[in-house]
Amino acid sequence: MELLAVPDLPEIQPGDDIAALVRERVDLRAEDVVCVASTIVSKAEGRHANLADFPAGPRAKEIAARLGDISGEEKDPRFAQAVLEESTEVIMEAPFLLTETRFGHVGVNAGIDRSNVPGSDLLLLPTRPTESAERIHDELPVESVVVTDTCGRPFRHGQRGVAIGWAGMPASRDWRGEPDRDGRELGVTVQNVVDELAAAANLVAGEGAGGTPVVVVRDFEFGDHDGSDNHFRDVEGDFVRQALRQWEFDG
Amino acid sequence: MELLAVPDLPEIQPGDDIAALVRERVDLRAEDVVCVASTIVSKAEGRHANLADFPAGPRAKEIAARLGDISGEEKDPRFAQAVLEESTEVIMEAPFLLTETRFGHVGVNAGIDRSNVPGSDLLLLPTRPTESAERIHDELPVESVVVTDTCGRPFRHGQRGVAIGWAGMPASRDWRGEPDRDGRELGVTVQNVVDELAAAANLVAGEGAGGTPVVVVRDFEFGDHDGSDNHFRDVEGDFVRQALRQWEFDG
Repeated sequence: MELLAVPDLPEIQPGDDIAALVRERVDLRAEDVVCVASTIVSKAEGRHANLADFPAGPRAKEIAARLGDISGEEKDPRFAQAVLEESTEVIMEAPFLLTETRFGHVGVNAGIDRSNVPGSDLLLLPTRPTESAERIHDELPVESVVVTDTCGRPFRHGQRGVAIGWAGMPASRDWRGEPDRDGRELGVTVQNVVDELAAAANLVAGEGAGGTPVVVVRDFEFGDHDGSDNHFRDVEGDFVRQALRQWEFDG
Repeated sequence: MELLAVPDLPEIQPGDDIAALVRERVDLRAEDVVCVASTIVSKAEGRHANLADFPAGPRAKEIAARLGDISGEEKDPRFAQAVLEESTEVIMEAPFLLTETRFGHVGVNAGIDRSNVPGSDLLLLPTRPTESAERIHDELPVESVVVTDTCGRPFRHGQRGVAIGWAGMPASRDWRGEPDRDGRELGVTVQNVVDELAAAANLVAGEGAGGTPVVVVRDFEFGDHDGSDNHFRDVEGDFVRQALRQWEFDG
């Protein structure tokens, strides 16, 4: 398997055709997976915003005041307002704001980015990244497209790449029922391949000024497996989410 | 960046020299990262065990009875005993057993594997996987070695590859202080590269009978960044762990 960063992409503007920009820069093959950073999808979709667009309501003011008290730094309630407007549930409000976005992703601050945005304060995540992936996929002669983001996670330090949208392949492949080397059946083994592809792409994509937001994964084989588009856990099976709903930060 | 599965590794036996088996099968380069699945590290280190080795104490019997009630399937209290003996904290005991292993990893059933183990019931994780990685690294002419496992996570379906030990490189690279495309400073951006390498390797390693447990990552560049070996979160900064300690499964 090989990963190729697409060179020399310009700064993406609203309305830009990402698929065309990629096609011009790399000879794609039918079985390639094209991983696209959500930042450029957001830019192409015009998901720039300004804090002034989000006059803060009572809930946002309450959250910002509490986060300000905890951090000792003033927090802009308009940012909290933007997060609330991008979210369908606040799972945890302190010591940071963890929410579910409208498309089911659980992340800090609804994935709103305050860096890398010329001429605006904020860059929101794509509205429905799987639909974004489908639109890009329609215009690329490749097997599949993954829209990636980076985020932190419980138990482990640091951020890693994750998939927030995908098209052309299932999110996961299913190894259940296959024999191991002893001929015994493998247990619970559902591999989330789109997240792993996003993580792999992030190793070559980089961040900041030198970043290359599109990475082609070549010679990845999904193989002859069942697949599933279960990607974001339902609340019923997400015990961490249930626990966080009940928990109160004490500090 | 390229990923090469090492072909034709034999079934690993206690005492086998994994580094030698890899060197015989692939022309390694000085800058390569060699990712080794924890299953074969465990096998080489003789971490096989049998349920009979773990006579269940009162706590294990209590946990197994509760998990049996929840699942409607009888649970062997000796397995719960093995998990407890491999763990330094039980974070959640129902509806599944989530613990911290002695080396700081948080996972279900302390990562104990019940498949893929000829002639024994259980395969325990390596005792201290970073020391395992260092030993393998000492015998390989490469930049670094990562010992990998697969596990599930909150919020997102399916399992993905993670690093549980590493040698020759820091766990994370630090992008803080670097400018973005607008010259603004990037915010909190610590990238856990060893987890991303493990995820990438898992895409080509596979599971079960056809699995290739060693993957060489070629042309990965860590780059000129600060690094950190923070990998498993301290409890103080792990709010999910704090929440899970207080939460009680109700079902």
